[in-house]
Amino acid sequence: MTYRRVALIGLGLIASSMFWAMRRAGMDAHVTGYARSEETRETARRIGLCDTVCDSAEEAVKDADLVVLAVPVGAMGRVAEAIAPYLKPGCTVTDVGSVKKAVIEAVGPHIPEGVDFVPAHPMAGTEHSGPESGFASLFDNRWCLIVPDGAREEATDRLEAYWRALGANTQRMEVEHHDLVCAVVSHVPHLIAYTMVGVADDLRRVSDQEVIKFSAAGFRDFTRIAASDPTMWRDVFLTNKEASLEILGRFTEELFALQRAIRTGDGDTLFDYFTHTRAIRRGIVQAGQDTDAPDFGRIRKEQGGSGQG
Amino acid sequence: MTYRRVALIGLGLIASSMFWAMRRAGMDAHVTGYARSEETRETARRIGLCDTVCDSAEEAVKDADLVVLAVPVGAMGRVAEAIAPYLKPGCTVTDVGSVKKAVIEAVGPHIPEGVDFVPAHPMAGTEHSGPESGFASLFDNRWCLIVPDGAREEATDRLEAYWRALGANTQRMEVEHHDLVCAVVSHVPHLIAYTMVGVADDLRRVSDQEVIKFSAAGFRDFTRIAASDPTMWRDVFLTNKEASLEILGRFTEELFALQRAIRTGDGDTLFDYFTHTRAIRRGIVQAGQDTDAPDFGRIRKEQGGSGQG
Repeated sequence: MTYRRVALIGLGLIASSMFWAMRRAGMDAHVTGYARSEETRETARRIGLCDTVCDSAEEAVKDADLVVLAVPVGAMGRVAEAIAPYLKPGCTVTDVGSVKKAVIEAVGPHIPEGVDFVPAHPMAGTEHSGPESGFASLFDNRWCLIVPDGAREEATDRLEAYWRALGANTQRMEVEHHDLVCAVVSHVPHLIAYTMVGVADDLRRVSDQEVIKFSAAGFRDFTRIAASDPTMWRDVFLTNKEASLEILGRFTEELFALQRAIRTGDGDTLFDYFTHTRAIRRGIVQAGQDTDAPDFGRIRKEQGGSGQG
Repeated sequence: MTYRRVALIGLGLIASSMFWAMRRAGMDAHVTGYARSEETRETARRIGLCDTVCDSAEEAVKDADLVVLAVPVGAMGRVAEAIAPYLKPGCTVTDVGSVKKAVIEAVGPHIPEGVDFVPAHPMAGTEHSGPESGFASLFDNRWCLIVPDGAREEATDRLEAYWRALGANTQRMEVEHHDLVCAVVSHVPHLIAYTMVGVADDLRRVSDQEVIKFSAAGFRDFTRIAASDPTMWRDVFLTNKEASLEILGRFTEELFALQRAIRTGDGDTLFDYFTHTRAIRRGIVQAGQDTDAPDFGRIRKEQGGSGQG
């Protein structure tokens, strides 16, 4: 049931974590890898990422039972077109993109007869990127959303089992709903974090040094996700335009309501709003999706490292 | 030079952390404490928080060399008025409020002749609140801003030395600048986090369960600061109205520019913006104000606890 030969196209945080998670799971698949940049390929070879690092995507996908497109969303279509003639009949192509409708539109037309395309989205990541940022436990207890979109049931089942073996929970989802859910839990939060960091950086009346020194008062939480890969996030917003703009519209509406409460001194509205939002945090901690340790648990960690106080 | 008798008025996260930090520093001051809620006073007695927990603020401040107002910003004036007649001549009154102009206006007029009021703001905290949430290392390597506002140099020096003994770095700052800096690094980020969490919670097309399950994709970072104490934050926005609205205005302006780039498909603007914001994160990590470990280092922590994957 498991794949004998897996090709990872793109060797960043997600693909490299997949490789180490496959190794951890004891899968004996032969893993080929390809990255467009020669530097990335050399790094991969140096750190033992993949059994074979190939110099072309075509070579990497040859004989593969599973081909994973792990490139930025905007590059998916181009890569799919390039590899299509070299895909083994009966193989499965999947992707790890954060947007599904645009990826299906870009990749789907290139998929040959007899090959299944099963779009997937492992909802996991860190603010680090590149082949050296991967680690085996990245997907543990995270969710991988599967958007079958007409693939054979057998191929979809097999991909789900594969992701569970890598540590993830899986759930199938319809494509439009996927893109909306991700706009809420991921895309718009990232845009807002980027914006907040941009505002702080750009404000002439407060120096960058002040922003940095005093960042532990809340701001630094935003800087982590605003340090994520710019190419990936550019492509996400260009391709999940509709849902992102919808949620941004809702966000601005709420923000204006709170802004008005501040301006008019309406303390009750503020208090009620701030009370309500505590419940979601509790839900997330109870669901094992975050730690209850104060400050994400980083307090203990920092004590050892810094101590200039 | 250190205070022989310290009164903590309000026994939440900050005051309780101050107490444990004083103990850790080996200060032999006698510490009295008072909280308005009987439940909090009983909790304090049970966990050994303060040498003496008093049943009135008046009793707690008697003979104190340092009186710390550690109540929500909106309650500062009322508390100052109540304790004023009982303050020992020559003592110092300070506060730990996140806003300084409003606190100075509310507290200042009640401070008797011969008593120094030295406003201060330890920029540290967690999303937890209450007397049991305090810990000795909360202030380590964090900044305590001091806004002397006419207090005697000797009293200001002494308070600075006290805060450094608790683990903090100190810096003096002019009152308006303080309130603006805090709007940027703390107040507006909190409001934005509250708003984002509120939007997600309120969206009927995406269920709360989905928001919770998939929160690790970015959203959960916002829920931590949106779980902070509602009373404290209501008061912050009611009392730092001007600076908060100024920064919110800048934020909306930038957000609209990015929203427009999404709508028009302007990938270059998005890419440049997202690249630029990475630098501040590096600065914060280099300054020892956050960890470089992926995901704030919570990955390792979670592995032990959950593992349902």
